[in-house]
Amino acid sequence: MNETYGDVIDAVRAAIGRNSAALHEPIFLGNERLYVDECINSSFVSSAGKFVDRFEQDLANYTGASFAVATVNGTSALHLALLLAGVQPEDEVLVPALSFIATANAVSYRGAIPHFVDIEENSLGLDPRALRVFLEASTRQEEGLCLNSETGRVIRAVVPMHTFGHPCDVESIVDVAEEFNITVVEDAAESLGSFSAGKHTGTHGLLGTLSFNGNKIITTGGGGAILTNDAQLARKAKHLATTAKTHHKWEYSHDEIGFNYRMPNLNAALGCAQLEQLESFRSSKRTLFERYQSAFENFENMKIVQEPVNTSSNYWLQSLLLSEDLVGQRDELLSALNDAGLQSRPIWNLLPRQIPFRNSPCASIPVATQIERRVINLPSSAGLA
Amino acid sequence: MNETYGDVIDAVRAAIGRNSAALHEPIFLGNERLYVDECINSSFVSSAGKFVDRFEQDLANYTGASFAVATVNGTSALHLALLLAGVQPEDEVLVPALSFIATANAVSYRGAIPHFVDIEENSLGLDPRALRVFLEASTRQEEGLCLNSETGRVIRAVVPMHTFGHPCDVESIVDVAEEFNITVVEDAAESLGSFSAGKHTGTHGLLGTLSFNGNKIITTGGGGAILTNDAQLARKAKHLATTAKTHHKWEYSHDEIGFNYRMPNLNAALGCAQLEQLESFRSSKRTLFERYQSAFENFENMKIVQEPVNTSSNYWLQSLLLSEDLVGQRDELLSALNDAGLQSRPIWNLLPRQIPFRNSPCASIPVATQIERRVINLPSSAGLA
Repeated sequence: MNETYGDVIDAVRAAIGRNSAALHEPIFLGNERLYVDECINSSFVSSAGKFVDRFEQDLANYTGASFAVATVNGTSALHLALLLAGVQPEDEVLVPALSFIATANAVSYRGAIPHFVDIEENSLGLDPRALRVFLEASTRQEEGLCLNSETGRVIRAVVPMHTFGHPCDVESIVDVAEEFNITVVEDAAESLGSFSAGKHTGTHGLLGTLSFNGNKIITTGGGGAILTNDAQLARKAKHLATTAKTHHKWEYSHDEIGFNYRMPNLNAALGCAQLEQLESFRSSKRTLFERYQSAFENFENMKIVQEPVNTSSNYWLQSLLLSEDLVGQRDELLSALNDAGLQSRPIWNLLPRQIPFRNSPCASIPVATQIERRVINLPSSAGLA
Repeated sequence: MNETYGDVIDAVRAAIGRNSAALHEPIFLGNERLYVDECINSSFVSSAGKFVDRFEQDLANYTGASFAVATVNGTSALHLALLLAGVQPEDEVLVPALSFIATANAVSYRGAIPHFVDIEENSLGLDPRALRVFLEASTRQEEGLCLNSETGRVIRAVVPMHTFGHPCDVESIVDVAEEFNITVVEDAAESLGSFSAGKHTGTHGLLGTLSFNGNKIITTGGGGAILTNDAQLARKAKHLATTAKTHHKWEYSHDEIGFNYRMPNLNAALGCAQLEQLESFRSSKRTLFERYQSAFENFENMKIVQEPVNTSSNYWLQSLLLSEDLVGQRDELLSALNDAGLQSRPIWNLLPRQIPFRNSPCASIPVATQIERRVINLPSSAGLA
């Protein structure tokens, strides 16, 4: 490459200064201790309590979803959302070929089969054109269902994911999905605070899911949420997340196989305090993006990934996109950055190459295949700005 | 009955005094706020952190298990333990006919089928004699496996559960299970602090599981743990609970379908403080039992449930066992108690009668069928003693 590894290290340091350079560290400078103490004093630390109710209401208000249902983590939220979307065992669910493994795991928990589709370079998310090409070439419609022509299985849902917080082209994906009778469940685990066409990510499909894991823009320790505008689905989400116990003064009657998926009040207390600071974290991350962009603006062979047109990203994880001819140097550059004390990571391994999904169906994925070798995440904590 | 509902209410009041009479309230009078603050200050609130390590070590020390692996709740612990015990989809797993529904749900998450077996009145837990009668009459051995003669399915595991904290006859169950080549996975969700023949519940089989839900003897908000003496199983439990990610400086490689099941450090911080008080909670609960027993000692038609011989119970939930002729009056008595401000609950509905398990196989369960109508849980908080 034209620039040396030393130039890259200097550029990162120019953006973040002498700060500690972990990939992502949370910040607890708000009401975290106050609310958590209040939660403990109330003695309601478990799955019922005012912080859970408030956190759900605050999330709904912020995202514009009619309902938010807090869960024990983002993976459980996605598992439940797929179930609520009507995904049945042996169905296929379309998943971007590049995502964190939980996206595909959640499909498998439902007994369904992830089917991988290509992404686009612009958003790093599911490509609506690749989706259409696959659906036109490889599926048929039968009684209002989309069937995989080869396997005969129902393709029930598609799960667009907003990589590193950058919204994918979810409007076009929703259009294609509607045309082919496929339900959209958005995996917005990384994109709380990100908007596409003015609408919050996770609110474009029938259901969307969030994550508040320790490395996310806000954290509840571990936690997630389901977003939906459908009152009945929201009610059912709560029911299934609390062992599907029917309402009775004392009787233990359960009307289907439920889960222990509700977020504890203790974690929601932390979440309420974190959510109060979301706009400040988001603003810092956008500032950090500008610093990175300016530090790398004259580099010939790499660029900082920018939010797509008509979107507003939370810039959860900053990322460097190497040009195609640098594919072979990614790991050396990662070593150089990490050796210099700048914690850096590659994008995930391709899902269809992960051991548990090697036998899953996979459409043509030329873009995902080369993007996998070209993306490096850089230190991204809100505290760096 | 000979005693009136008023007599029962008076006896409960004699045991607990004028205290608030919720069924079960946690107590946070130790280091809870200190440790949780320390956890937030460390910025490690999620699935890694010193409180998780310490909580696991403290649990191992207390129970005498070689290893404890903390999970997001007791249901996830049992799901994972069944998987680690080798339970395959379409296997059958023997489960007591009277238990909280999570015991059977966890079996179904694995794609396996719960097969219900009778309990004994003495412990309210799985009856080793009924287990043997069923296995002798309805199974055959083939290549070291126990097969259900009727369905042809492998009976892979048995899940004894220690109802309300009282140890069931787990030694005899282990003997029967070994004889028939069935693995024992103990559901000790309710019995942290309970010992059978001097050994902590959850440590008699290959694996055992605990719960720290808000209503348990100690709570982490939501949480659970797996106990085992097998180093390899413990390692695998951690691996599967953290998305089965393989160890690498930066690469995202996962070698099987894993889960997001690790306990967050925030919850473990609460757990460490609660565990320091376990002996005091246990002692209060045993005192409360004595008060209840003395208040009800002259009642002719009901008695307070007592720990079985050769066990030491945590007396998590106090319970009243009605005589057989009072079966028809259980609900009226429940109404009278609850109307008097004494929160009371019946034992669970029979699992084979719950909607999701109506079609599951079920052995002869005469004892469970009548015990279901005869047990009432009384206010049981440690703070009442």
